[in-house]
Amino acid sequence: MKIGVFDSGIGGLTVLAALRERLPHAEYVYLGDTANLPYGTKSPAQVTRLSVACAERLKPYGLDALVVACNTASSVALEAIREAMGTVPVFGVVEPGVQAVVEALEAWPASEYVPILVLATRATIKSASYGKSLRSFLEPATRPVFEQACPILVPMIEEGWINHQVLHDTISEYVGPVRAVYLTGVVLLGCTHYPWIEAAIQAQLPGWKVVNSAFALGRLVSAQLNADKARGTAPGSVEWIFTDPDALPAFACQFINGQRRSAHVE
Amino acid sequence: MKIGVFDSGIGGLTVLAALRERLPHAEYVYLGDTANLPYGTKSPAQVTRLSVACAERLKPYGLDALVVACNTASSVALEAIREAMGTVPVFGVVEPGVQAVVEALEAWPASEYVPILVLATRATIKSASYGKSLRSFLEPATRPVFEQACPILVPMIEEGWINHQVLHDTISEYVGPVRAVYLTGVVLLGCTHYPWIEAAIQAQLPGWKVVNSAFALGRLVSAQLNADKARGTAPGSVEWIFTDPDALPAFACQFINGQRRSAHVE
Repeated sequence: MKIGVFDSGIGGLTVLAALRERLPHAEYVYLGDTANLPYGTKSPAQVTRLSVACAERLKPYGLDALVVACNTASSVALEAIREAMGTVPVFGVVEPGVQAVVEALEAWPASEYVPILVLATRATIKSASYGKSLRSFLEPATRPVFEQACPILVPMIEEGWINHQVLHDTISEYVGPVRAVYLTGVVLLGCTHYPWIEAAIQAQLPGWKVVNSAFALGRLVSAQLNADKARGTAPGSVEWIFTDPDALPAFACQFINGQRRSAHVE
Repeated sequence: MKIGVFDSGIGGLTVLAALRERLPHAEYVYLGDTANLPYGTKSPAQVTRLSVACAERLKPYGLDALVVACNTASSVALEAIREAMGTVPVFGVVEPGVQAVVEALEAWPASEYVPILVLATRATIKSASYGKSLRSFLEPATRPVFEQACPILVPMIEEGWINHQVLHDTISEYVGPVRAVYLTGVVLLGCTHYPWIEAAIQAQLPGWKVVNSAFALGRLVSAQLNADKARGTAPGSVEWIFTDPDALPAFACQFINGQRRSAHVE
């Protein structure tokens, strides 16, 4: 079984790790469009153009599935990517993210007031992909949805400031208005970079439940693919493609080397 | 007289303003490659490829000069841009920046120890363009050069946090090591975004002289171009090209509208 994972850069590595936990024997092709990151500050037209180019590049690999591990691309370009991939199933991160929020909310009685805070890039928030979908599932009177664009978080993570005071202050600035009113709620990491700073986000929202869509995505993908084909004893593999390989952050190289060690990855 | 100004995004607007002060009657074509920003985190090969594409796009305008208002492109792609532009004179920002530092240093006696701190993007610092050039002009025993990559500043400026506590803390983090040792010196804004936050940088380095290369560049360009052709009574004009026009920060739109008002710009 061959699965493509596509992201604007290194955020999708957190999705890849979740997929490999569920489907350890699959062969993965990871495409990070580092020559064109970040996607989150670009217009929908530009994100769509770039996403389709990545899909075209992955098509010759004969994939059994393509996972769009980038929230921005999932939010604005999923239909165009599906069209480009023809019959290959394409999974975005928005649907499993929404599913994960709905499940997390089951911890509260339906009558209790529980706010949902979506943190994501500017392009994802502008697209309202999460807001629209969440509101279609949830009762607005008790489950209000707040959406916050956090454009500085991705560059800060790429700088490696994942436990820096400036990062904590930046998160505090972004979540401050909602935190000032609500002691508890569900916060969705609506960008695949954010799991790198999950602890810092949790620290700023101590009473909140933090939801990472990567696990829900892993479950969705493994449930929908042919399970027989995914079984096996082969150690699995990852082929790495970066459109600007000389511009990888140091901590991403460490992560990739860790993945290499864990599974004899090519 | 027609002058092209090229930047990865909106940083070059500070250079455009300085040029228009010197050469108010010229016709300007401003190209902001917003579809591909930021350049400062990309590899030299990728920055060169993108810069040459921008030069090719500007070539049909019949320019009298092209100003590369991006420090990263000036640092790693100037020769390739010159090749692409043929006989059109091409000006980068590194040479006038170095010139401006040398002039600023004249305020101190040659025997006094005066450090120089270059703040720039990761790609510019990696290229060592400023360091190499400054060291070739300056006496190393009394004029030590420090180079600091500041990758988070550009996204923070694009977010509009130009007087935010988080910005001040980020600058403090970047200049802290040098400031801890030296009370005075010359700090060069080695990225055309940084003039937007010149006051914040000055506040973190109160005893230091802040140097912005835009003025030196304006002087260099006006001195080298045919002055007769530049004279006139026409109000001048700017034609704007943005490769991703839907992704401009709000404060850049304000600036562009201001420039429009000031000179009947098309």
